[in-house]
Amino acid sequence: MTQTKYILSERDMPRQWYNIIPDLPSPMNPPLHPGTRQPLGPQDLAPLFPDALIEQEMSSQRWIDIPEPVMEILAQWRPTPLIRAKGLEKALGTPAKIYFKHEGTSPAGSHKPNTAIAQVYYNKLEGVKRIVTETGAGQWGSALALACNYFGLEAKVYMVKISYEQKPYRRVLMETWGASVTPSPSTETEAGRTILAADPNSSGSLGIAISEAVEDAANRDDTKYALGSVLNHVLLHQTIMGLETKKQFEMAGDSPDVIIGCCGGGSNFYGLAAPYFLDKINGKDIDLLGCEPAACPTMTKGHFHYDFGDSIGMTPLVAMHTLGHSFVPASIHAGGLRYHGMAPLLSELLRQKLMRAEAYGQVECFEAAITFARTEGIVPAPESSHAIRGAIKEALKAKEEGKEKTIVFLLSGHGHFDMSAYDAYLSGSLKDFELPQENIDSAWEAIKDLPEAE
Amino acid sequence: MTQTKYILSERDMPRQWYNIIPDLPSPMNPPLHPGTRQPLGPQDLAPLFPDALIEQEMSSQRWIDIPEPVMEILAQWRPTPLIRAKGLEKALGTPAKIYFKHEGTSPAGSHKPNTAIAQVYYNKLEGVKRIVTETGAGQWGSALALACNYFGLEAKVYMVKISYEQKPYRRVLMETWGASVTPSPSTETEAGRTILAADPNSSGSLGIAISEAVEDAANRDDTKYALGSVLNHVLLHQTIMGLETKKQFEMAGDSPDVIIGCCGGGSNFYGLAAPYFLDKINGKDIDLLGCEPAACPTMTKGHFHYDFGDSIGMTPLVAMHTLGHSFVPASIHAGGLRYHGMAPLLSELLRQKLMRAEAYGQVECFEAAITFARTEGIVPAPESSHAIRGAIKEALKAKEEGKEKTIVFLLSGHGHFDMSAYDAYLSGSLKDFELPQENIDSAWEAIKDLPEAE
Repeated sequence: MTQTKYILSERDMPRQWYNIIPDLPSPMNPPLHPGTRQPLGPQDLAPLFPDALIEQEMSSQRWIDIPEPVMEILAQWRPTPLIRAKGLEKALGTPAKIYFKHEGTSPAGSHKPNTAIAQVYYNKLEGVKRIVTETGAGQWGSALALACNYFGLEAKVYMVKISYEQKPYRRVLMETWGASVTPSPSTETEAGRTILAADPNSSGSLGIAISEAVEDAANRDDTKYALGSVLNHVLLHQTIMGLETKKQFEMAGDSPDVIIGCCGGGSNFYGLAAPYFLDKINGKDIDLLGCEPAACPTMTKGHFHYDFGDSIGMTPLVAMHTLGHSFVPASIHAGGLRYHGMAPLLSELLRQKLMRAEAYGQVECFEAAITFARTEGIVPAPESSHAIRGAIKEALKAKEEGKEKTIVFLLSGHGHFDMSAYDAYLSGSLKDFELPQENIDSAWEAIKDLPEAE
Repeated sequence: MTQTKYILSERDMPRQWYNIIPDLPSPMNPPLHPGTRQPLGPQDLAPLFPDALIEQEMSSQRWIDIPEPVMEILAQWRPTPLIRAKGLEKALGTPAKIYFKHEGTSPAGSHKPNTAIAQVYYNKLEGVKRIVTETGAGQWGSALALACNYFGLEAKVYMVKISYEQKPYRRVLMETWGASVTPSPSTETEAGRTILAADPNSSGSLGIAISEAVEDAANRDDTKYALGSVLNHVLLHQTIMGLETKKQFEMAGDSPDVIIGCCGGGSNFYGLAAPYFLDKINGKDIDLLGCEPAACPTMTKGHFHYDFGDSIGMTPLVAMHTLGHSFVPASIHAGGLRYHGMAPLLSELLRQKLMRAEAYGQVECFEAAITFARTEGIVPAPESSHAIRGAIKEALKAKEEGKEKTIVFLLSGHGHFDMSAYDAYLSGSLKDFELPQENIDSAWEAIKDLPEAE
């Protein structure tokens, strides 16, 4: 029997996260205070995050210990398998070897608990009783609900309205773990009411939901805020995936030439890619490819510029690839990729040309998802299907060029809660959205006066 | 870090299935031809099954090799983990140790692919082009769709109408893997038309769907039938779970005193329990507990008697615990447990007092499911929640008696496609059904004249 999956034992789980910041060829632009526009100090973040996470956010330490209680919970499903996609390879007739890291095996069905567990742990340690957050497709919200449930904290989730309506079962999943879920924009916050006043039919966006959650947290002493992507400490927690993957490739006696992930806020691709970014910085020839939706082409059509993380302008200003915080993407099924910006750290790596990006329409992504489901058996999340699309494209290119190469992509989650999207695709009613240039231009116009990044 | 999960390597996967039949203290009643009522010969099953499966169905060989191509596919997710439910233990404050074997990790989300892969393989080997089957909750149908997809066979699934309506996403899952799905009773078969003539609003049952699938298969030369439970060869294929579990308990340095599973047709409980049944036959003190729904109490209120496997009376007569083939259970959410009979092999083990059975209402099962989801993080299928209910009951009994004991149950599948049921439970609208004694009496009355079993 030829081996197809590579499983590390619990003993071989990485015990430290990898922080790439001290290894960057040139430093990042500092986040700025939204009022003073001066570099942010730790105290500016104190209303939103516990001290330990603020420290990680600003840390220049290369290796950071994973606390034992976090390891204990992660070990319930980690290390996750690295799987050789032989069925997919065969169907494509490619000389390339395709591997995927399967993060759909967590209880919440995605990579998101990797950071949710860590974040809730540090909050609990500092006496926080309640955590608020936003969620798009519901993957992050359910991960936070799961984590809060483990540590006995209250969870409140603002869920992007289009997903709340399209994916009621993600709401039920969060409620099963005891969380309270509100569709966003809501009337519960000033931010939500502002959006609804301008557009009563707003289907919401991650940026809007972030505004609501941040406002909720800032207004209550017992409450902190948690973000599922974008920030340095979130990306840090996801590096456990890439560190495991490196060890698993050693087991397999192989090494990847191409690293692929889908990009919404950037944490899943970064989490897989981090140790390979370091290899690239050190001169190794590695192709790092981030795949984003054509309906929200942050990296391929956005600007590297200072912008707000939310839609209202409450958060610090960060230097990132952004379409502008007023940009509202079309209602694609990959709700988790509908974010106007990109993690500052990943944006910096893109700016330094250590990675590249491509944008795909949702129809071609669902086509890739079906190919994957029918060759590998696993039904992927619509978000992850962007990475599959990228991997298939690379494998077909290898076939055309007659090149053997090794491709790895992150299967960030399963699609069990997205079957209505599959139904739409299989029945032929799924469509691509056109993105008018004027939408891009007007959102960019609105942030041009914010500080320029270097 | 204390270990909570026990993972075998692919190398340690069992390479043979275990057949308990030669080890039974007394032999089973033979299946009878529905017309002649004489013991069945292999040729009687030839229209429905390939020769290799008929041979397994009637085999008295103790160990049967798992074919290499079946191993290759199973190894994509097997061996499945054995997990110590420390969170649940702590919440219950029990001195008992609780383990579960997690079969929700397969691509179809349940234990069903263990037999589906094997069955489709043998069909393919004998040139079959198309396989028909029935499905209740959709777990079996999706497993068969997955297996047919792997081997390139056409799959046609008659899905119990109540589940087809309550669980549209299971249908989409089957379609994602390329299967064609029809709600049963349908107008496509004589059997379906008969049922609809008597009750146009029939919500269907497994027994009815079996009649339709058997008729479909019998009428086409290129087509065979596949059953997801009940038959000897199906139970045989599931023993891989119990064989793995035994090895995993060796890794854990522990051994179970109580073995628990939910029972619809009987294959999941049997698959876990088979090697422990042998220990019990050999004199070891082991408690084997099958958990069934109060709405379909085959083992606790049925009779050990010859009966048809389907609702119309087309299949062979088998000696089993049965409520009578005309019994139609209430529309509980655990659609996979709505079967009037019980696997003849498991029924025989019950008759020989090698196991015991309990029946639970669906409300107490969902309560157990929520407890499990909130302590172990995993959302179980409604079917599996019956096993959890049993395990919690046993753990609380151990607490009352101040006894240390080791409990293991089979988590037969996850509940990602059952969130509407969780929604009903969490919103308080889920109810138990009363089962009128007259329903039991009249179904029993209708089979009294069939041959008696010994």
